Amino acid sequence: MSSDETTRVLAVASHVVSGYVGNKIAVFTLQSLGYDVAALNTVQFSYRQWTGTKATAQDITDLYNGLRQSYLDDFDMMLSGYVPGAEAVVAVGKIAKELKENNKDSPSNFFWVLDPVMGDNGKIYVAEDVVPAYKGLIEYADLILPNQFEAELLSEVKIVGMDSLKAAIETLHDKYRIPHVIITSVNFSPSGQSMSHLSVIGSSMTSNGKTRLFQITFPSIDSYFCGTGDMFGALITARMREAVQDVAGLINQASWLSDDSVTAIELPLARATEKVLASMHEVLRKTRDGMQSVAERTRATLTEEERATGKGEQQIKSKASELRLVQNLESLRSPKVQFKAQQI
Amino acid sequence: MSSDETTRVLAVASHVVSGYVGNKIAVFTLQSLGYDVAALNTVQFSYRQWTGTKATAQDITDLYNGLRQSYLDDFDMMLSGYVPGAEAVVAVGKIAKELKENNKDSPSNFFWVLDPVMGDNGKIYVAEDVVPAYKGLIEYADLILPNQFEAELLSEVKIVGMDSLKAAIETLHDKYRIPHVIITSVNFSPSGQSMSHLSVIGSSMTSNGKTRLFQITFPSIDSYFCGTGDMFGALITARMREAVQDVAGLINQASWLSDDSVTAIELPLARATEKVLASMHEVLRKTRDGMQSVAERTRATLTEEERATGKGEQQIKSKASELRLVQNLESLRSPKVQFKAQQI
Repeated sequence: MSSDETTRVLAVASHVVSGYVGNKIAVFTLQSLGYDVAALNTVQFSYRQWTGTKATAQDITDLYNGLRQSYLDDFDMMLSGYVPGAEAVVAVGKIAKELKENNKDSPSNFFWVLDPVMGDNGKIYVAEDVVPAYKGLIEYADLILPNQFEAELLSEVKIVGMDSLKAAIETLHDKYRIPHVIITSVNFSPSGQSMSHLSVIGSSMTSNGKTRLFQITFPSIDSYFCGTGDMFGALITARMREAVQDVAGLINQASWLSDDSVTAIELPLARATEKVLASMHEVLRKTRDGMQSVAERTRATLTEEERATGKGEQQIKSKASELRLVQNLESLRSPKVQFKAQQI
Repeated sequence: MSSDETTRVLAVASHVVSGYVGNKIAVFTLQSLGYDVAALNTVQFSYRQWTGTKATAQDITDLYNGLRQSYLDDFDMMLSGYVPGAEAVVAVGKIAKELKENNKDSPSNFFWVLDPVMGDNGKIYVAEDVVPAYKGLIEYADLILPNQFEAELLSEVKIVGMDSLKAAIETLHDKYRIPHVIITSVNFSPSGQSMSHLSVIGSSMTSNGKTRLFQITFPSIDSYFCGTGDMFGALITARMREAVQDVAGLINQASWLSDDSVTAIELPLARATEKVLASMHEVLRKTRDGMQSVAERTRATLTEEERATGKGEQQIKSKASELRLVQNLESLRSPKVQFKAQQI
């Protein structure tokens, strides 16, 4: 596509009426950065609890077929997040495969960012058959965004430190041919920094399936947030394309894979991740700074009984922790990069 | 609410995966202007055709109840657009009534903008029982946005010229106690201008239910667009609140109704409409300017058979006419007002 066109992204994830997770984050974030987003909502819930409806595999397929019939399947990128159940995961994988197939003569024209939402901290929180469903389709992804536990599930490598992490990523590159991998959270301290810091670790594979590992470390913000993984996914989708466009000719390479001469910290994936984390750090900090006043205002509306029994406190905390995205458009659009990628 | 808080809007309308109508317009537009939007999607369709699923009245009620249970029903405003079927319309009306009831001690704290989507140009395009459903609930609305035909259906006044238009609006003010009305399109030429111009006509009622009529005339753009009514609704929701906040104390008046001493062209509703039409004119012009290249790019992907038979031309035109919102964020945020309200 020519450079004056708007990049079209198909975003497949959950929708919540109120608050910011899934597509509620992805759509606004990508639109704010100038992307044209088609939003295929896999569920519609009120909020974080499960009041609402889910799309079936057939619903998802029908919606996609409707797009195709209107010549609206001309996507440059796809971002997929939470998908309810193995059959629906397979349906989403079929869409990605078809979009790849449509571009088989120019494979660089479609790029799939897959967040394989399965679990965290050693616990699977989806149906067990979702795991093999993802394993069956990750080979079609260009960039995957597992947390440490999801990387273990996909690679079948138990991650206990940097060596096994590297082995897991190499398995994903080499066995599944996934060009780009970012482990969005690790539960060990990769380079001995204190637990007040977090790291993400990324790699774009070389032509022979080897890792090019980089790490970005940033101070953690002492609060519980929901939707940080979804925000990462939306931002990396936008920033990866921009970083690739900054390198002459790279956008025409299959899966936007850099030459073997490019080192880990020179990778567009590293550049993109730096920018993503800059936006996230600003938004999370501002969200934390506003939490108390949101909680206090909401508490003021409680009945005396609710106040006496502490009923509602959990909901209030959850409400107060909603990412403040619309209030911080500039942090999404023009963040100040503070945390730089380091070679591992 | 204090001025440093983000205004919370409940937007109830249709969702399309690709393209811009209904909530796909409302959510981005309001978020771009800094509003926190809860998006209750009444349908999920692929696009303009009807592939997809509809929410039932029960689904809508359940989603709202889910919000309430999480203390997320603290809305400052509500914007409702297309709702599928009379039962669902009644369910949406119940939500608005409940939000009014919650604020009965400070009635200015909730403002409902209702676009009574029923038909156009003399033709009803919803189920017949939707009309009485709307009639039963418009008295709870603060601002309604009918086109000429919908204003006729609600007021039962046949509109053939300015006198009958005024009579229709006065009926809506006086009989249904609707404080603010904007007729978003009229199919006669109100002040003798040529058909290359369009008008919207608005009024905020006086304390005794009389009209204060203003008109804004602007050049029409010779193209077919979809979603212009939805864009109007989203923008007027944002701009009405801003215009009211510009007048000391007005935000504390029930339904934000100006004193009787305020003339039609001084109304915040007039100020808001001027800004809305400025944004719309810029976005429509830029959309029209980009149409041909979108159509050409899409045509280039057709098979020879499709090209020979002209198959697909309708879909291509429709795709090319999608409002270019994400490409024109500045036109949403900071439009240049060109068309001013005139007293009728």
